[in-house]
Amino acid sequence: MTEFDLISLLTRSLPGNPSVLVGAGDDCAVLDLGVPDRHILFKTDAVVEGVHFTPDTPPEQIGHKALGRCLSDIAAMAGTPTAALITMALPRPFEPRFIEAIYSGMNVLAKRHDVAIVGGETTTNPERLLISVALLGWVGRAKAVLRSGAQSGDAIFVIGELGGSLAGKHLTFEPRLAEAHWLSDNVAIHAMLDISDGLAGDLRHILKASHKGAELLASSIPISRQARLASSSSSTSRSSSKPPLLAALTDGEDFELLFTVSSPDAVPLLDAWKKQFPDLRLTCIGKITDTEGIQIRDKQGLRILKEKGYEHFSQ
Amino acid sequence: MTEFDLISLLTRSLPGNPSVLVGAGDDCAVLDLGVPDRHILFKTDAVVEGVHFTPDTPPEQIGHKALGRCLSDIAAMAGTPTAALITMALPRPFEPRFIEAIYSGMNVLAKRHDVAIVGGETTTNPERLLISVALLGWVGRAKAVLRSGAQSGDAIFVIGELGGSLAGKHLTFEPRLAEAHWLSDNVAIHAMLDISDGLAGDLRHILKASHKGAELLASSIPISRQARLASSSSSTSRSSSKPPLLAALTDGEDFELLFTVSSPDAVPLLDAWKKQFPDLRLTCIGKITDTEGIQIRDKQGLRILKEKGYEHFSQ
Repeated sequence: MTEFDLISLLTRSLPGNPSVLVGAGDDCAVLDLGVPDRHILFKTDAVVEGVHFTPDTPPEQIGHKALGRCLSDIAAMAGTPTAALITMALPRPFEPRFIEAIYSGMNVLAKRHDVAIVGGETTTNPERLLISVALLGWVGRAKAVLRSGAQSGDAIFVIGELGGSLAGKHLTFEPRLAEAHWLSDNVAIHAMLDISDGLAGDLRHILKASHKGAELLASSIPISRQARLASSSSSTSRSSSKPPLLAALTDGEDFELLFTVSSPDAVPLLDAWKKQFPDLRLTCIGKITDTEGIQIRDKQGLRILKEKGYEHFSQ
Repeated sequence: MTEFDLISLLTRSLPGNPSVLVGAGDDCAVLDLGVPDRHILFKTDAVVEGVHFTPDTPPEQIGHKALGRCLSDIAAMAGTPTAALITMALPRPFEPRFIEAIYSGMNVLAKRHDVAIVGGETTTNPERLLISVALLGWVGRAKAVLRSGAQSGDAIFVIGELGGSLAGKHLTFEPRLAEAHWLSDNVAIHAMLDISDGLAGDLRHILKASHKGAELLASSIPISRQARLASSSSSTSRSSSKPPLLAALTDGEDFELLFTVSSPDAVPLLDAWKKQFPDLRLTCIGKITDTEGIQIRDKQGLRILKEKGYEHFSQ
């Protein structure tokens, strides 16, 4: 049973109440708690030693990643983060300076995005460090961008470059909050999420929620330098590695935004983006279709993309 | 360094923002998110296999405890819970039916208190199961009951009976939400928290936050049947056990509410309580003083209480 199968099993019959606008299954839960002009966003995310970072990872980067992942989910709804609680499950003995340095990394990122850290707790996890972050944010009423709004003919866009994140970006990425706000203010975004499981896997989340398919243009997918480097170094050595395109399609933890807009909005969006963010790529990588699944067009023609994105575990 | 020392170190310089009314250091964070008549309560709490439950604990009870602990913290502010996110860090291989049964225990408790479960995540923690719950709730504006409001001369009350929770109550307790609401509607509560670390340890949290001391009457402390049984069984066997009074003072995880009200309110409160909750004890166990620390009066006179409550770890 995979992570996604288990989640599907567990979320079948969760208790609800009238405050819930969007429950399990999107980047954040969306709640109506009675704020006149806003909906509340609610998200948790955990990082685990040996899974999301190693014992050698600099502690400041562990803290940055732990909070940054949650901030990226708020960005994926075009929201604004407000307050976080931090749960630290610590091995023993623990090194207070190491924990302090983790907090230091979180605090720097939190301050940059005006997020208050309002407490949390410490508990024991004897074998490895685990950090769970709970984050509250908000978005204007009916302004949350969901995964379910993609429409046939929509242009599919991705910010930045993809693949090879494990070379370092997964620890240092900047959540795309400013970009998401600008997008939300300047174009009608139909569907959006942040890429944590890999482009192909996360695009499937949009397609499933929207009951659509997609056609990607292989040559347009923005492949990161790290993905190309990993591939070229492996071709001269004996280590196994993915071709760069496959890395861009399936590597996890890029934390870039993937979104769709209606086709007539695509070119004006690209023009406006270049003026606003001249140093950050925005790429149209394909279109939403009525044909189930992901098809990818390359020199050989149109093929069905079978590779799934990274899942956190399977058994 | 103890858990409390570490928390004190980490919470010295947390980033804030104008939404924060109460940050780290109380049962919940209290936020002003712009709801006209309400403040928002925000809390996380985790349970860990081998620390808060054993591999033999029935999964429904694990789920009940995981959510119940957070609900108890909302009760401690006289608040109402609204929505929860559940983080499951799972060993592998995991047994889907076991995880489903944990959710079943949570769902039953959530439905009873009209709490929506709006998602969460699953991740990997290879050696042991860890469940972190993030909970949102609300309380009327300026109605949150903090730890810091105890005043000299206040009567100190506790609901229920204390000690011996590990015999079973720690897995099956009912969070005192109804009782907290009734108290909040019927008496001016000066300070309140839920007893998770033990009466003595948690009373010290109120005293520290309120800059006060306390005098307890040993004979008035409501000792649970389980604490007495554990003591008498150990007197006939070779197992070591605490005297019942010490168990009531220092055993953790009772999840009963401890609160203070002004002295003139004490007798009317007891009378009204008996009518409202005839089957649930409410006991005045002492008074708030200006003398630092906890003193306890018994047949030998007034002594300083040195025992600290249960801490989750120390090194």
